[in-house]
Amino acid sequence: MTDPFLDRLADLLGPGGLVVGDELASRPASWTRAAEPCAAAALVRPRSTEEVSAVLAACHAAGRVVVPRGGATGLVDGILCAPGDIALSLERMTGIEALDPLAMTMVVRAGTTLEAVQAAAEAADLFFPLDLGARGSATVGGTISTNAGGLRVLRYGMMREMVLGLEAVLADGTVVSSMRPLIKNNTGLDLKQLFVGTEGTLGVVTRAVLRLRPAPAGYATAVVACADVDAAAAILSRAQRAFQGRVSSFEGMWPDFYRAMTAPGRFAPPLHREHPYYALIEVECVPEEEPRFLSLLETLMTEEIVRDAVISASEEQRRALWRIRDRVELLGEAGLARPFDVSVPFSAMAGYVAEASARIAAIHPDAGSVAYGHVGDNNIHWNTAQLPDPALEAQVEAAIYEPLAALQGSVSAEHGIGLEKRGKLGLSRSAAEIATMRAVKRALDPKGILNPGKIFSHPVD
Amino acid sequence: MTDPFLDRLADLLGPGGLVVGDELASRPASWTRAAEPCAAAALVRPRSTEEVSAVLAACHAAGRVVVPRGGATGLVDGILCAPGDIALSLERMTGIEALDPLAMTMVVRAGTTLEAVQAAAEAADLFFPLDLGARGSATVGGTISTNAGGLRVLRYGMMREMVLGLEAVLADGTVVSSMRPLIKNNTGLDLKQLFVGTEGTLGVVTRAVLRLRPAPAGYATAVVACADVDAAAAILSRAQRAFQGRVSSFEGMWPDFYRAMTAPGRFAPPLHREHPYYALIEVECVPEEEPRFLSLLETLMTEEIVRDAVISASEEQRRALWRIRDRVELLGEAGLARPFDVSVPFSAMAGYVAEASARIAAIHPDAGSVAYGHVGDNNIHWNTAQLPDPALEAQVEAAIYEPLAALQGSVSAEHGIGLEKRGKLGLSRSAAEIATMRAVKRALDPKGILNPGKIFSHPVD
Repeated sequence: MTDPFLDRLADLLGPGGLVVGDELASRPASWTRAAEPCAAAALVRPRSTEEVSAVLAACHAAGRVVVPRGGATGLVDGILCAPGDIALSLERMTGIEALDPLAMTMVVRAGTTLEAVQAAAEAADLFFPLDLGARGSATVGGTISTNAGGLRVLRYGMMREMVLGLEAVLADGTVVSSMRPLIKNNTGLDLKQLFVGTEGTLGVVTRAVLRLRPAPAGYATAVVACADVDAAAAILSRAQRAFQGRVSSFEGMWPDFYRAMTAPGRFAPPLHREHPYYALIEVECVPEEEPRFLSLLETLMTEEIVRDAVISASEEQRRALWRIRDRVELLGEAGLARPFDVSVPFSAMAGYVAEASARIAAIHPDAGSVAYGHVGDNNIHWNTAQLPDPALEAQVEAAIYEPLAALQGSVSAEHGIGLEKRGKLGLSRSAAEIATMRAVKRALDPKGILNPGKIFSHPVD
Repeated sequence: MTDPFLDRLADLLGPGGLVVGDELASRPASWTRAAEPCAAAALVRPRSTEEVSAVLAACHAAGRVVVPRGGATGLVDGILCAPGDIALSLERMTGIEALDPLAMTMVVRAGTTLEAVQAAAEAADLFFPLDLGARGSATVGGTISTNAGGLRVLRYGMMREMVLGLEAVLADGTVVSSMRPLIKNNTGLDLKQLFVGTEGTLGVVTRAVLRLRPAPAGYATAVVACADVDAAAAILSRAQRAFQGRVSSFEGMWPDFYRAMTAPGRFAPPLHREHPYYALIEVECVPEEEPRFLSLLETLMTEEIVRDAVISASEEQRRALWRIRDRVELLGEAGLARPFDVSVPFSAMAGYVAEASARIAAIHPDAGSVAYGHVGDNNIHWNTAQLPDPALEAQVEAAIYEPLAALQGSVSAEHGIGLEKRGKLGLSRSAAEIATMRAVKRALDPKGILNPGKIFSHPVD
């Protein structure tokens, strides 16, 4: 090794602690740059919080940049490294330390995958509600650092709401342990909030106390057709009232999306393809409540709010309904491979999607877009066509992001900012907000060694 | 006025903006010091965020301490002023600016009372779940700054979980507005978390976007008797599974508490007074589900987990059951007037209460204590006898607080730290945690003008 600092890290971490050379180059730079090798000088793999602390203290003293890396499934280049950076993975800090079935809490190391957490909860006849496609790779530390969302936010909240306690290591190696398994703990600033969703810029999450939930007793699931997203919002509101807030998913599908997913050769359309709007609604309930779900939909049809509906009668049918919303990778076949993730207040959604769609269509003959997403959470996803010219791509981005500022929307609902959306942050955060974030960053990481340049630029805008 | 700075503030705020002299002296120092007048040099009453900003900028420039004050119903002296301080009240910044029934959100000024928020939600056939005895005085700003809890945290979370957006003014007058009405917004540090529960030490909350919920369709309510708090935890777990997390309150009553509340001349005991433990359980459900509630309790009786139970058959009976848990001011008649508020992990509760009770009883022949509280939230309240000698009182405090450090408990579940529990903070927060809180405080309020000395001492410990 030509970098003597790497020798120090290797000594510190022992065998297998340092990954360099070809082995490092075989790791991708990020999910969206799967063909590029990780550019870091080395990847460190500590085995304990103490080793994380020792690594950070050494990097802090030497002024070396540290880029924490979870399952590497993020979509905004939050883990991208520059040459000379030290990438840090908790892949050797895995496992569930404790599970208390009565208190419904789990103590887990940050390198553990989401799937392992879900499986351990299930083995105790409990439920960890966070779920997303990358569950087999995404880690506890990564999902905390990005405040992951997914399919059940409406009912259970985002990762933030599932974390009772947290341990993190600050830039200088200080271990801040707030691992109390308590629902209520009003003792000053709730420190874990500093590390949730800040993408590793304020500390490295090493362990957490997660809140588990009772396993759902069953689901009632339907796809409904209605006039527009405003009608969908009304349907959601009625279902929330009828089932006391137990709507666990409410997924909106604009017609172009529904048609793309039910095009010949893809999925059979459960409702005909000419309705102006579609929504998938799922309620957590016991089997005896299913007639009430049916009768709610009947009432909404009588009131002409719902135009048509199909209810799943089996788990197989339920999965078939979900596929139409969920298997968005098939949009690639329709030439719509580029994903976007934004938030829009309910009342502004219809106008926003109509306007942005029209703007995109006008950019180029090959331009195209479909909108869908967790509309019950204000979250709209777009898939757009990849255009040959970066300048045209920038126009598509502008069509999607720029209107959000005036609508009180957000340029990132659940994916985070990373490097990819850094230039858009100012559309959803004021100068005063960004300055406040920077003040906290300076206070906790004065040398700027922790994932600098992610979320906002470093050291100056 | 002999203080020229007050003239400046008066000019800034116009008529009625400044309260001094007898009018100020008629305001109590705090809830627990109702007989003491507010010691501040003046109380300012801005009418807008701009005026709050102007006051803070002026105080910041002049190095004057500002102590924000909500409904003055807190129990930890978080609003206590020293001579020369500027007290700040948002009592002229009241009212609901907007309510979106479909999105189930409300935009509200921080001086608005909790009761007014609840009433406005109800008028829209919606529900604002936070509730506490002081609802008629407690304000939105105060309940956010103290992260208020109350009776429905188990189902709806604390005030933190009900705030979607927030506007706050920093020490130097900078307005940080994060008022987006979004469920998902992953754009860096979630700034509102800096102001929730930090007792006005990092900023003055001026407005908020609150999340409303569907109105509950009804309740099933019971008081059950069981062997101990561990059995109660098992009952809660079974009820959460049976009703998919819709247990809205789970209140534990240790036997001395139950006996005190059902003593002759107080409330008629719904279950006989010799059981070793009692719990009040309330589930949100529609009337058709009540048979399932009954059958759950029957099953638990067959399994000998529940020893006896009484279910309310009417709203009047429901209220009668609640009174036994809720009318704790009657404990004053039993000589148990001093309230405590702590958190304890479920698995440690039984041993903690047994040990602390025994320790308190051994302090003095007049010493006494009863334990009860929101045990479903890990939250135990104590009421103890007021002892004549401060040294004996300190022993009672030690018996209640000291064991919490080893048990991963908290010295404050929902009341906050303020001035009253400042000396106990180290029992629930490590030196690294407190140092991190201080670093954030210094970053946002470098001169220490915002409620200094609350939570932790200022400028040094």
